[in-house]
Amino acid sequence: MSSQFEPKDPHFKSRVSRSFDEQAVMTTIGAALAEVEPGRVVIELPYRPELTQQDGFIHAGISSTIMDSACGYAAFSLMPAEARVLTIEFKINLLAPAAGDLFRAVGKVRKPGRSVYVAESELYASRDGADKLVATMHGTLMAVYPQ
Amino acid sequence: MSSQFEPKDPHFKSRVSRSFDEQAVMTTIGAALAEVEPGRVVIELPYRPELTQQDGFIHAGISSTIMDSACGYAAFSLMPAEARVLTIEFKINLLAPAAGDLFRAVGKVRKPGRSVYVAESELYASRDGADKLVATMHGTLMAVYPQ
Amino acid sequence: MSSQFEPKDPHFKSRVSRSFDEQAVMTTIGAALAEVEPGRVVIELPYRPELTQQDGFIHAGISSTIMDSACGYAAFSLMPAEARVLTIEFKINLLAPAAGDLFRAVGKVRKPGRSVYVAESELYASRDGADKLVATMHGTLMAVYPQ
Amino acid sequence: MSSQFEPKDPHFKSRVSRSFDEQAVMTTIGAALAEVEPGRVVIELPYRPELTQQDGFIHAGISSTIMDSACGYAAFSLMPAEARVLTIEFKINLLAPAAGDLFRAVGKVRKPGRSVYVAESELYASRDGADKLVATMHGTLMAVYPQ
Repeated sequence: MSSQFEPKDPHFKSRVSRSFDEQAVMTTIGAALAEVEPGRVVIELPYRPELTQQDGFIHAGISSTIMDSACGYAAFSLMPAEARVLTIEFKINLLAPAAGDLFRAVGKVRKPGRSVYVAESELYASRDGADKLVATMHGTLMAVYPQ
Repeated sequence: MSSQFEPKDPHFKSRVSRSFDEQAVMTTIGAALAEVEPGRVVIELPYRPELTQQDGFIHAGISSTIMDSACGYAAFSLMPAEARVLTIEFKINLLAPAAGDLFRAVGKVRKPGRSVYVAESELYASRDGADKLVATMHGTLMAVYPQ
Repeated sequence: MSSQFEPKDPHFKSRVSRSFDEQAVMTTIGAALAEVEPGRVVIELPYRPELTQQDGFIHAGISSTIMDSACGYAAFSLMPAEARVLTIEFKINLLAPAAGDLFRAVGKVRKPGRSVYVAESELYASRDGADKLVATMHGTLMAVYPQ
Repeated sequence: MSSQFEPKDPHFKSRVSRSFDEQAVMTTIGAALAEVEPGRVVIELPYRPELTQQDGFIHAGISSTIMDSACGYAAFSLMPAEARVLTIEFKINLLAPAAGDLFRAVGKVRKPGRSVYVAESELYASRDGADKLVATMHGTLMAVYPQ
Protein backbone atom coordinates (compact mmCIF):
# COMPACT_ATOMS: atom_id res chain seq x y z
CA MET A 1 0.00 0.00 0.00
CA SER A 2 1.35 3.43 -0.89
CA SER A 3 1.61 6.07 1.80
CA GLN A 4 1.75 9.84 1.92
CA PHE A 5 4.39 9.73 4.65
CA GLU A 6 8.11 9.18 4.50
CA PRO A 7 9.39 7.24 7.51
CA LYS A 8 12.40 8.76 9.28
CA ASP A 9 13.59 5.33 10.41
CA PRO A 10 13.97 2.75 7.61
CA HIS A 11 13.56 -0.01 10.22
CA PHE A 12 10.18 1.31 11.38
CA LYS A 13 8.40 -2.00 10.78
CA SER A 14 10.61 -4.06 13.04
CA ARG A 15 10.68 -1.24 15.61
CA VAL A 16 6.86 -1.16 15.74
CA SER A 17 6.68 -4.93 15.78
CA ARG A 18 9.19 -5.23 18.62
CA SER A 19 7.35 -2.66 20.75
CA PHE A 20 4.00 -4.31 20.06
CA ASP A 21 5.43 -7.63 21.26
CA GLU A 22 6.36 -5.90 24.53
CA GLN A 23 2.72 -4.95 25.18
CA ALA A 24 1.80 -7.88 27.38
CA VAL A 25 -1.85 -6.85 27.26
CA MET A 26 -2.02 -7.74 23.56
CA THR A 27 -1.18 -11.36 24.29
CA THR A 28 -3.67 -11.35 27.16
CA ILE A 29 -6.57 -10.24 24.98
CA GLY A 30 -5.42 -12.10 21.86
CA ALA A 31 -4.69 -9.11 19.60
CA ALA A 32 -2.20 -9.23 16.74
CA LEU A 33 -0.36 -6.69 14.62
CA ALA A 34 -1.78 -7.16 11.12
CA GLU A 35 -0.31 -4.33 9.02
CA VAL A 36 2.41 -1.72 9.44
CA GLU A 37 2.89 1.00 6.84
CA PRO A 38 4.34 4.48 7.31
CA GLY A 39 1.73 6.32 9.37
CA ARG A 40 -0.79 3.45 9.24
CA VAL A 41 -1.13 0.41 11.51
CA VAL A 42 -3.80 -2.27 11.72
CA ILE A 43 -4.42 -4.39 14.83
CA GLU A 44 -6.77 -7.37 14.79
CA LEU A 45 -8.66 -8.94 17.64
CA PRO A 46 -10.81 -12.06 17.31
CA TYR A 47 -13.97 -12.12 19.45
CA ARG A 48 -13.59 -13.73 22.86
CA PRO A 49 -16.41 -14.07 25.38
CA GLU A 50 -14.04 -13.11 28.21
CA LEU A 51 -13.64 -9.58 26.80
CA THR A 52 -17.31 -8.66 26.88
CA GLN A 53 -19.54 -6.24 28.76
CA GLN A 54 -22.98 -7.08 30.15
CA ASP A 55 -24.71 -7.48 26.76
CA GLY A 56 -22.11 -9.80 25.27
CA PHE A 57 -20.40 -7.16 23.11
CA ILE A 58 -16.69 -6.38 23.28
CA HIS A 59 -16.18 -3.86 26.11
CA ALA A 60 -15.48 -0.29 24.95
CA GLY A 61 -12.25 -0.35 26.98
CA ILE A 62 -11.00 -3.35 25.03
CA SER A 63 -11.92 -1.60 21.80
CA SER A 64 -9.95 1.37 23.15
CA THR A 65 -6.98 -0.87 23.83
CA ILE A 66 -6.50 -1.84 20.20
CA MET A 67 -7.58 1.55 18.84
CA ASP A 68 -5.13 3.40 21.09
CA SER A 69 -2.27 1.10 20.11
CA ALA A 70 -3.20 1.43 16.42
CA CYS A 71 -3.01 5.23 16.76
CA GLY A 72 0.15 5.02 18.82
CA TYR A 73 2.03 2.73 16.46
CA ALA A 74 0.86 4.66 13.41
CA ALA A 75 2.55 7.69 14.98
CA PHE A 76 5.53 5.65 16.20
CA SER A 77 6.13 4.35 12.66
CA LEU A 78 6.95 7.92 11.57
CA MET A 79 9.14 8.85 14.51
CA PRO A 80 12.93 8.81 14.52
CA ALA A 81 14.54 5.62 15.85
CA GLU A 82 15.44 7.11 19.23
CA ALA A 83 11.92 8.40 20.10
CA ARG A 84 9.40 6.83 22.44
CA VAL A 85 5.67 7.34 21.96
CA LEU A 86 3.23 8.54 24.59
CA THR A 87 -0.54 8.95 24.31
CA ILE A 88 -1.63 12.33 25.69
CA GLU A 89 -5.37 12.02 25.13
CA PHE A 90 -7.98 10.37 22.97
CA LYS A 91 -11.68 10.55 22.36
CA ILE A 92 -13.88 7.68 21.31
CA ASN A 93 -17.28 7.75 19.68
CA LEU A 94 -19.16 4.48 19.87
CA LEU A 95 -21.31 4.21 16.76
CA ALA A 96 -22.70 0.70 17.14
CA PRO A 97 -22.34 -2.29 19.47
CA ALA A 98 -19.00 -4.08 19.03
CA ALA A 99 -20.62 -7.31 17.83
CA GLY A 100 -18.80 -9.63 15.45
CA ASP A 101 -16.22 -12.35 14.98
CA LEU A 102 -13.20 -10.21 14.26
CA PHE A 103 -12.33 -6.59 15.08
CA ARG A 104 -9.89 -4.51 13.10
CA ALA A 105 -8.53 -1.21 14.43
CA VAL A 106 -7.13 0.85 11.59
CA GLY A 107 -4.90 3.64 12.93
CA LYS A 108 -3.71 6.51 10.76
CA VAL A 109 -1.63 9.60 11.39
CA ARG A 110 -3.55 12.72 10.54
CA LYS A 111 -0.76 15.17 11.25
CA PRO A 112 2.80 14.36 12.22
CA GLY A 113 4.92 16.94 14.06
CA ARG A 114 8.30 17.03 15.74
CA SER A 115 6.77 16.29 19.11
CA VAL A 116 2.97 16.28 18.71
CA TYR A 117 1.15 13.80 16.46
CA VAL A 118 -2.58 13.74 15.75
CA ALA A 119 -3.90 10.31 14.80
CA GLU A 120 -7.19 8.52 14.41
CA SER A 121 -8.44 4.93 14.49
CA GLU A 122 -11.51 3.34 13.07
CA LEU A 123 -12.80 0.10 14.49
CA TYR A 124 -14.47 -2.35 12.13
CA ALA A 125 -16.43 -5.35 13.30
CA SER A 126 -16.58 -8.19 10.85
CA ARG A 127 -19.46 -10.66 10.90
CA ASP A 128 -20.11 -13.28 8.25
CA GLY A 129 -17.60 -11.52 6.02
CA ALA A 130 -19.29 -8.09 6.19
CA ASP A 131 -17.48 -5.14 7.79
CA LYS A 132 -19.18 -2.49 9.90
CA LEU A 133 -17.68 0.66 11.39
CA VAL A 134 -18.44 0.50 15.11
CA ALA A 135 -16.18 3.14 16.71
CA THR A 136 -13.83 6.02 15.96
CA MET A 137 -10.93 7.40 18.00
CA HIS A 138 -9.21 10.75 17.65
CA GLY A 139 -6.12 11.27 19.71
CA THR A 140 -2.95 13.18 20.37
CA LEU A 141 0.38 11.46 20.83
CA MET A 142 3.79 12.69 21.74
CA ALA A 143 7.27 11.77 20.68
CA VAL A 144 9.54 11.71 23.69
CA TYR A 145 13.25 12.00 23.03
CA PRO A 146 16.07 10.89 25.34
CA GLN A 147 17.45 13.90 27.23
CA MET B 1 -21.33 8.69 52.00
CA SER B 2 -24.01 11.29 51.32
CA SER B 3 -25.00 12.06 47.76
CA GLN B 4 -26.64 14.92 45.91
CA PHE B 5 -28.70 12.50 43.84
CA GLU B 6 -31.90 10.64 44.59
CA PRO B 7 -31.97 7.19 42.98
CA LYS B 8 -35.12 6.35 41.03
CA ASP B 9 -34.72 2.65 41.76
CA PRO B 10 -34.32 1.75 45.46
CA HIS B 11 -32.58 -1.47 44.41
CA PHE B 12 -29.90 0.39 42.42
CA LYS B 13 -27.03 -1.24 44.32
CA SER B 14 -27.96 -4.80 43.50
CA ARG B 15 -28.89 -3.79 39.93
CA VAL B 16 -25.43 -2.25 39.39
CA SER B 17 -23.73 -5.16 41.09
CA ARG B 18 -25.60 -7.73 38.98
CA SER B 19 -24.74 -5.96 35.74
CA PHE B 20 -21.10 -5.59 36.77
CA ASP B 21 -20.95 -9.34 37.40
CA GLU B 22 -22.14 -9.88 33.83
CA GLN B 23 -19.15 -7.96 32.44
CA ALA B 24 -16.89 -10.92 31.75
CA VAL B 25 -14.00 -8.60 30.99
CA MET B 26 -13.89 -7.51 34.64
CA THR B 27 -13.11 -11.04 35.78
CA THR B 28 -10.56 -11.37 32.98
CA ILE B 29 -8.59 -8.32 34.09
CA GLY B 30 -9.23 -8.81 37.81
CA ALA B 31 -11.32 -5.69 38.48
CA ALA B 32 -13.84 -5.45 41.32
CA LEU B 33 -16.75 -3.20 42.19
CA ALA B 34 -15.64 -1.38 45.35
CA GLU B 35 -18.33 1.24 46.04
CA VAL B 36 -21.81 2.02 44.74
CA GLU B 37 -23.60 5.19 45.81
CA PRO B 38 -26.30 7.14 43.92
CA GLY B 39 -24.43 8.68 41.00
CA ARG B 40 -21.00 7.49 42.19
CA VAL B 41 -19.23 4.18 41.57
CA VAL B 42 -15.69 3.02 42.35
CA ILE B 43 -13.96 0.16 40.54
CA GLU B 44 -10.63 -1.24 41.70
CA LEU B 45 -7.97 -3.04 39.71
CA PRO B 46 -4.80 -4.48 41.22
CA TYR B 47 -1.68 -4.27 39.06
CA ARG B 48 -1.03 -7.28 36.84
CA PRO B 49 1.95 -7.58 34.48
CA GLU B 50 -0.30 -9.10 31.80
CA LEU B 51 -2.22 -5.81 31.45
CA THR B 52 0.75 -3.64 30.56
CA GLN B 53 2.01 -1.71 27.55
CA GLN B 54 5.62 -1.65 26.36
CA ASP B 55 6.99 0.30 29.34
CA GLY B 56 5.40 -1.88 32.00
CA PHE B 57 2.56 0.52 32.85
CA ILE B 58 -1.12 -0.43 32.73
CA HIS B 59 -2.29 0.04 29.12
CA ALA B 60 -4.48 3.12 28.56
CA GLY B 61 -7.18 0.83 27.14
CA ILE B 62 -7.32 -1.13 30.38
CA SER B 63 -7.52 2.12 32.32
CA SER B 64 -10.37 3.06 29.95
CA THR B 65 -12.09 -0.22 30.70
CA ILE B 66 -12.53 0.50 34.39
CA MET B 67 -13.05 4.25 33.92
CA ASP B 68 -15.79 3.67 31.32
CA SER B 69 -17.57 1.17 33.56
CA ALA B 70 -17.24 3.50 36.55
CA CYS B 71 -18.91 6.29 34.50
CA GLY B 72 -21.48 3.90 33.12
CA TYR B 73 -22.51 2.42 36.45
CA ALA B 74 -22.55 5.84 38.12
CA ALA B 75 -25.14 6.83 35.50
CA PHE B 76 -26.90 3.44 35.68
CA SER B 77 -27.31 3.83 39.47
CA LEU B 78 -29.58 6.83 38.85
CA MET B 79 -31.65 5.31 36.07
CA PRO B 80 -35.09 3.74 36.47
CA ALA B 81 -35.14 -0.05 36.93
CA GLU B 82 -36.20 -0.78 33.36
CA ALA B 83 -33.42 1.23 31.64
CA ARG B 84 -30.26 -0.09 30.08
CA VAL B 85 -27.12 2.06 29.87
CA LEU B 86 -25.10 2.76 26.75
CA THR B 87 -21.86 4.72 26.40
CA ILE B 88 -22.06 7.18 23.51
CA GLU B 89 -18.61 8.70 23.75
CA PHE B 90 -15.79 9.45 26.13
CA LYS B 91 -12.55 11.35 26.21
CA ILE B 92 -9.51 10.47 28.23
CA ASN B 93 -6.61 12.66 29.28
CA LEU B 94 -3.59 10.71 30.43
CA LEU B 95 -1.85 12.82 33.06
CA ALA B 96 0.88 10.43 34.21
CA PRO B 97 2.00 6.85 33.59
CA ALA B 98 -0.37 4.30 35.16
CA ALA B 99 2.28 2.96 37.55
CA GLY B 100 1.30 1.50 40.91
CA ASP B 101 0.00 -1.47 42.86
CA LEU B 102 -3.68 -0.64 42.80
CA PHE B 103 -5.84 1.46 40.49
CA ARG B 104 -9.11 3.07 41.51
CA ALA B 105 -11.53 4.49 38.96
CA VAL B 106 -13.94 6.89 40.66
CA GLY B 107 -16.94 7.58 38.44
CA LYS B 108 -19.41 10.38 39.12
CA VAL B 109 -22.46 11.68 37.35
CA ARG B 110 -22.06 15.31 36.46
CA LYS B 111 -25.50 15.81 34.97
CA PRO B 112 -28.34 13.30 34.87
CA GLY B 113 -31.11 13.60 32.28
CA ARG B 114 -34.04 11.53 31.11
CA SER B 115 -32.01 10.00 28.32
CA VAL B 116 -28.58 11.70 28.29
CA TYR B 117 -26.16 11.53 31.23
CA VAL B 118 -22.81 13.31 31.49
CA ALA B 119 -20.34 11.57 33.79
CA GLU B 120 -16.65 11.64 34.62
CA SER B 121 -14.08 9.28 36.07
CA GLU B 122 -10.79 9.92 37.75
CA LEU B 123 -8.17 7.19 37.86
CA TYR B 124 -5.91 7.06 40.88
CA ALA B 125 -2.78 4.92 41.05
CA SER B 126 -1.78 3.89 44.51
CA ARG B 127 1.84 3.06 45.30
CA ASP B 128 3.20 2.51 48.78
CA GLY B 129 -0.02 3.91 50.19
CA ALA B 130 0.15 7.23 48.27
CA ASP B 131 -2.50 8.06 45.68
CA LYS B 132 -1.79 9.86 42.43
CA LEU B 133 -4.28 11.06 39.82
CA VAL B 134 -3.12 9.51 36.54
CA ALA B 135 -6.07 9.94 34.15
CA THR B 136 -9.44 11.61 33.72
CA MET B 137 -12.41 10.59 31.59
CA HIS B 138 -15.38 12.71 30.51
CA GLY B 139 -18.18 10.93 28.80
CA THR B 140 -21.76 10.86 27.66
CA LEU B 141 -24.07 7.95 28.40
CA MET B 142 -27.56 7.15 27.38
CA ALA B 143 -30.49 5.50 29.10
CA VAL B 144 -32.22 3.13 26.71
CA TYR B 145 -35.79 2.18 27.54
CA PRO B 146 -37.66 -0.89 26.32
CA GLN B 147 -39.95 0.05 23.42
CA MET C 1 -22.73 16.32 -5.40
CA SER C 2 -24.07 12.85 -4.75
CA SER C 3 -24.66 11.73 -1.18
CA GLN C 4 -24.92 8.44 0.64
CA PHE C 5 -27.85 9.74 2.67
CA GLU C 6 -31.52 10.04 1.87
CA PRO C 7 -33.10 13.14 3.47
CA LYS C 8 -36.34 12.54 5.38
CA ASP C 9 -37.55 16.05 4.64
CA PRO C 10 -37.53 17.04 0.94
CA HIS C 11 -37.34 20.69 2.00
CA PHE C 12 -34.14 20.16 4.02
CA LYS C 13 -32.21 22.86 2.16
CA SER C 14 -34.62 25.67 2.93
CA ARG C 15 -35.06 24.36 6.50
CA VAL C 16 -31.28 24.45 7.10
CA SER C 17 -30.98 27.82 5.41
CA ARG C 18 -33.79 29.34 7.46
CA SER C 19 -32.29 28.10 10.74
CA PHE C 20 -28.83 29.33 9.75
CA ASP C 21 -30.29 32.78 9.11
CA GLU C 22 -31.64 32.73 12.65
CA GLN C 23 -28.13 32.29 14.10
CA ALA C 24 -27.38 35.94 14.79
CA VAL C 25 -23.76 35.07 15.58
CA MET C 26 -23.15 34.15 11.94
CA THR C 27 -23.96 37.68 10.79
CA THR C 28 -21.82 39.07 13.61
CA ILE C 29 -18.72 37.14 12.55
CA GLY C 30 -19.47 37.31 8.81
CA ALA C 31 -20.00 33.59 8.14
CA ALA C 32 -22.15 32.31 5.27
CA LEU C 33 -23.80 29.03 4.38
CA ALA C 34 -21.97 27.87 1.25
CA GLU C 35 -23.28 24.34 0.54
CA VAL C 36 -26.12 22.15 1.81
CA GLU C 37 -26.36 18.52 0.74
CA PRO C 38 -27.98 15.61 2.60
CA GLY C 39 -25.65 15.01 5.55
CA ARG C 40 -23.07 17.56 4.39
CA VAL C 41 -22.89 21.31 5.02
CA VAL C 42 -20.18 23.86 4.28
CA ILE C 43 -19.86 27.19 6.09
CA GLU C 44 -17.44 29.87 4.96
CA LEU C 45 -15.84 32.66 6.95
CA PRO C 46 -13.58 35.31 5.46
CA TYR C 47 -10.69 36.45 7.66
CA ARG C 48 -11.43 39.44 9.88
CA PRO C 49 -8.89 40.99 12.25
CA GLU C 50 -11.61 41.41 14.91
CA LEU C 51 -11.93 37.61 15.28
CA THR C 52 -8.31 36.93 16.19
CA GLN C 53 -6.40 35.73 19.22
CA GLN C 54 -3.12 37.21 20.44
CA ASP C 55 -1.01 36.03 17.49
CA GLY C 56 -3.36 37.33 14.78
CA PHE C 57 -4.88 33.93 13.93
CA ILE C 58 -8.61 33.22 14.02
CA HIS C 59 -9.51 32.29 17.62
CA ALA C 60 -10.17 28.57 18.17
CA GLY C 61 -13.60 29.47 19.55
CA ILE C 62 -14.55 31.19 16.30
CA SER C 63 -13.30 28.17 14.38
CA SER C 64 -15.50 26.11 16.73
CA THR C 65 -18.46 28.34 15.93
CA ILE C 66 -18.50 27.50 12.24
CA MET C 67 -17.36 23.88 12.74
CA ASP C 68 -20.11 23.23 15.29
CA SER C 69 -22.78 24.73 13.03
CA ALA C 70 -21.43 22.76 10.06
CA CYS C 71 -21.77 19.54 12.09
CA GLY C 72 -25.14 20.59 13.44
CA TYR C 73 -26.67 21.47 10.10
CA ALA C 74 -25.21 18.38 8.44
CA ALA C 75 -27.17 16.38 11.04
CA PHE C 76 -30.20 18.68 10.82
CA SER C 77 -30.35 18.15 7.03
CA LEU C 78 -31.14 14.48 7.64
CA MET C 79 -33.69 14.95 10.38
CA PRO C 80 -37.46 14.90 9.93
CA ALA C 81 -39.12 18.28 9.44
CA GLU C 82 -40.44 18.49 13.00
CA ALA C 83 -37.09 17.86 14.78
CA ARG C 84 -34.81 20.40 16.39
CA VAL C 85 -31.05 19.82 16.63
CA LEU C 86 -28.96 20.05 19.79
CA THR C 87 -25.19 19.68 20.16
CA ILE C 88 -24.36 17.36 23.06
CA GLU C 89 -20.58 17.47 22.86
CA PHE C 90 -17.68 17.99 20.51
CA LYS C 91 -13.94 17.67 20.47
CA ILE C 92 -11.55 19.78 18.47
CA ASN C 93 -7.99 19.05 17.47
CA LEU C 94 -6.08 22.09 16.33
CA LEU C 95 -3.58 20.95 13.74
CA ALA C 96 -2.12 24.26 12.60
CA PRO C 97 -2.66 27.98 13.23
CA ALA C 98 -5.88 29.27 11.62
CA ALA C 99 -4.04 31.62 9.26
CA GLY C 100 -5.50 32.52 5.88
CA ASP C 101 -7.92 34.65 3.90
CA LEU C 102 -10.90 32.33 3.92
CA PHE C 103 -11.97 29.49 6.22
CA ARG C 104 -14.23 26.65 5.17
CA ALA C 105 -15.82 24.32 7.71
CA VAL C 106 -16.95 21.13 5.98
CA GLY C 107 -19.38 19.22 8.20
CA LYS C 108 -20.41 15.63 7.50
CA VAL C 109 -22.63 13.15 9.24
CA ARG C 110 -20.72 10.03 10.16
CA LYS C 111 -23.63 8.13 11.59
CA PRO C 112 -27.27 9.17 11.66
CA GLY C 113 -29.68 7.69 14.23
CA ARG C 114 -33.22 8.30 15.34
CA SER C 115 -32.08 10.56 18.15
CA VAL C 116 -28.25 10.48 18.23
CA TYR C 117 -26.10 11.69 15.32
CA VAL C 118 -22.32 11.52 15.08
CA ALA C 119 -20.80 14.15 12.81
CA GLU C 120 -17.43 15.66 12.02
CA SER C 121 -16.10 18.89 10.60
CA GLU C 122 -12.85 19.74 8.95
CA LEU C 123 -11.64 23.31 8.85
CA TYR C 124 -9.63 24.42 5.84
CA ALA C 125 -7.72 27.68 5.69
CA SER C 126 -7.21 29.07 2.25
CA ARG C 127 -4.28 31.36 1.49
CA ASP C 128 -3.27 32.46 -1.99
CA GLY C 129 -5.56 29.79 -3.40
CA ALA C 130 -3.99 26.88 -1.48
CA ASP C 131 -6.06 24.97 1.08
CA LYS C 132 -4.68 23.65 4.36
CA LEU C 133 -6.44 21.50 6.95
CA VAL C 134 -6.10 23.39 10.24
CA ALA C 135 -8.61 21.73 12.60
CA THR C 136 -10.95 18.78 13.00
CA MET C 137 -14.10 18.42 15.09
CA HIS C 138 -15.87 15.23 16.15
CA GLY C 139 -19.18 15.64 17.83
CA THR C 140 -22.47 14.18 18.93
CA LEU C 141 -25.79 15.81 18.15
CA MET C 142 -29.30 15.04 19.13
CA ALA C 143 -32.63 15.26 17.38
CA VAL C 144 -35.24 16.65 19.75
CA TYR C 145 -38.86 15.99 18.87
CA PRO C 146 -41.88 17.96 20.05
CA GLN C 147 -43.59 16.14 22.94
CA MET D 1 -7.67 33.26 46.80
CA SER D 2 -5.04 30.70 47.70
CA SER D 3 -3.67 28.42 45.02
CA GLN D 4 -1.95 25.08 44.89
CA PHE D 5 0.42 26.33 42.19
CA GLU D 6 3.55 28.43 42.36
CA PRO D 7 3.91 30.74 39.36
CA LYS D 8 7.30 30.67 37.63
CA ASP D 9 6.92 34.27 36.53
CA PRO D 10 6.12 36.77 39.33
CA HIS D 11 4.59 39.08 36.69
CA PHE D 12 2.11 36.45 35.49
CA LYS D 13 -0.92 38.69 36.07
CA SER D 14 0.22 41.49 33.82
CA ARG D 15 1.51 38.98 31.26
CA VAL D 16 -1.90 37.26 31.09
CA SER D 17 -3.69 40.59 31.04
CA ARG D 18 -1.52 41.94 28.21
CA SER D 19 -2.05 38.84 26.09
CA PHE D 20 -5.81 38.89 26.73
CA ASP D 21 -5.91 42.50 25.53
CA GLU D 22 -4.29 41.35 22.28
CA GLN D 23 -7.16 38.94 21.60
CA ALA D 24 -9.24 41.19 19.36
CA VAL D 25 -12.09 38.69 19.45
CA MET D 26 -12.66 39.42 23.14
CA THR D 27 -13.46 43.07 22.41
CA THR D 28 -15.65 42.00 19.51
CA ILE D 29 -17.82 39.74 21.68
CA GLY D 30 -17.61 41.92 24.80
CA ALA D 31 -15.70 39.50 27.08
CA ALA D 32 -13.54 40.67 29.96
CA LEU D 33 -10.81 39.17 32.11
CA ALA D 34 -12.34 38.97 35.59
CA GLU D 35 -9.82 37.06 37.73
CA VAL D 36 -6.23 35.86 37.35
CA GLU D 37 -4.67 33.61 39.96
CA PRO D 38 -1.84 31.08 39.52
CA GLY D 39 -3.39 28.31 37.44
CA ARG D 40 -6.89 29.83 37.53
CA VAL D 41 -8.49 32.43 35.26
CA VAL D 42 -12.06 33.69 35.00
CA ILE D 43 -13.48 35.36 31.89
CA GLU D 44 -16.89 37.03 31.87
CA LEU D 45 -19.23 37.65 28.99
CA PRO D 46 -22.53 39.54 29.29
CA TYR D 47 -25.37 38.26 27.12
CA ARG D 48 -25.68 39.88 23.71
CA PRO D 49 -28.36 38.98 21.16
CA GLU D 50 -25.78 39.14 18.34
CA LEU D 51 -23.91 36.12 19.79
CA THR D 52 -26.83 33.72 19.67
CA GLN D 53 -27.80 30.61 17.77
CA GLN D 54 -31.23 29.87 16.33
CA ASP D 55 -32.99 29.46 19.70
CA GLY D 56 -31.66 32.68 21.22
CA PHE D 57 -29.01 31.02 23.41
CA ILE D 58 -25.32 31.91 23.28
CA HIS D 59 -23.76 29.85 20.46
CA ALA D 60 -21.59 26.93 21.65
CA GLY D 61 -18.69 28.36 19.66
CA ILE D 62 -18.86 31.62 21.60
CA SER D 63 -18.99 29.62 24.83
CA SER D 64 -15.91 27.79 23.51
CA THR D 65 -14.19 31.09 22.86
CA ILE D 66 -14.21 32.17 26.49
CA MET D 67 -13.75 28.64 27.86
CA ASP D 68 -10.71 28.03 25.64
CA SER D 69 -9.12 31.33 26.64
CA ALA D 70 -9.87 30.62 30.30
CA CYS D 71 -8.07 27.27 30.00
CA GLY D 72 -5.27 28.81 27.97
CA TYR D 73 -4.58 31.69 30.33
CA ALA D 74 -4.85 29.43 33.38
CA ALA D 75 -2.00 27.42 31.83
CA PHE D 76 -0.17 30.54 30.63
CA SER D 77 -0.22 31.96 34.17
CA LEU D 78 2.03 29.10 35.30
CA MET D 79 4.45 29.20 32.38
CA PRO D 80 7.86 30.85 32.42
CA ALA D 81 7.94 34.42 31.09
CA GLU D 82 9.46 33.46 27.73
CA ALA D 83 6.84 30.80 26.82
CA ARG D 84 3.92 31.16 24.46
CA VAL D 85 0.77 29.08 24.91
CA LEU D 86 -0.91 26.97 22.25
CA THR D 87 -4.15 24.98 22.50
CA ILE D 88 -3.68 21.46 21.11
CA GLU D 89 -7.19 20.15 21.63
CA PHE D 90 -10.27 20.50 23.75
CA LYS D 91 -13.55 18.76 24.32
CA ILE D 92 -16.78 20.40 25.34
CA ASN D 93 -19.85 18.88 26.94
CA LEU D 94 -22.93 21.04 26.71
CA LEU D 95 -25.02 20.35 29.80
CA ALA D 96 -27.77 22.91 29.38
CA PRO D 97 -28.72 25.78 27.04
CA ALA D 98 -26.48 28.83 27.51
CA ALA D 99 -29.34 31.04 28.68
CA GLY D 100 -28.72 33.91 31.06
CA ASP D 101 -27.57 37.49 31.56
CA LEU D 102 -23.92 36.84 32.33
CA PHE D 103 -21.58 33.95 31.53
CA ARG D 104 -18.49 33.09 33.55
CA ALA D 105 -15.84 30.71 32.22
CA VAL D 106 -13.72 29.46 35.11
CA GLY D 107 -10.51 27.88 33.81
CA LYS D 108 -8.21 25.80 36.01
CA VAL D 109 -5.01 23.90 35.40
CA ARG D 110 -5.40 20.26 36.24
CA LYS D 111 -1.83 19.25 35.58
CA PRO D 112 1.07 21.49 34.64
CA GLY D 113 4.10 20.09 32.83
CA ARG D 114 7.20 21.47 31.18
CA SER D 115 5.57 21.47 27.80
CA VAL D 116 2.11 19.85 28.16
CA TYR D 117 -0.62 21.31 30.39
CA VAL D 118 -4.03 19.77 31.05
CA ALA D 119 -6.70 22.29 31.97
CA GLU D 120 -10.47 22.52 32.31
CA SER D 121 -13.12 25.20 32.20
CA GLU D 122 -16.59 25.34 33.59
CA LEU D 123 -19.14 27.71 32.13
CA TYR D 124 -21.72 29.19 34.47
CA ALA D 125 -24.78 31.07 33.27
CA SER D 126 -26.16 33.56 35.70
CA ARG D 127 -29.82 34.54 35.59
CA ASP D 128 -31.58 36.62 38.22
CA GLY D 129 -28.58 36.09 40.49
CA ALA D 130 -28.61 32.29 40.33
CA ASP D 131 -25.69 30.41 38.76
CA LYS D 132 -26.06 27.29 36.65
CA LEU D 133 -23.33 25.09 35.19
CA VAL D 134 -24.05 24.91 31.46
CA ALA D 135 -20.87 23.51 29.90
CA THR D 136 -17.51 21.92 30.69
CA MET D 137 -14.28 21.93 28.69
CA HIS D 138 -11.29 19.63 29.05
CA GLY D 139 -8.25 20.49 27.03
CA THR D 140 -4.56 20.12 26.43
CA LEU D 141 -2.27 23.10 25.99
CA MET D 142 1.35 23.43 25.12
CA ALA D 143 4.09 25.77 26.21
CA VAL D 144 6.15 26.79 23.22
CA TYR D 145 9.62 28.12 23.92
CA PRO D 146 11.72 30.33 21.64
CA GLN D 147 14.25 28.19 19.76
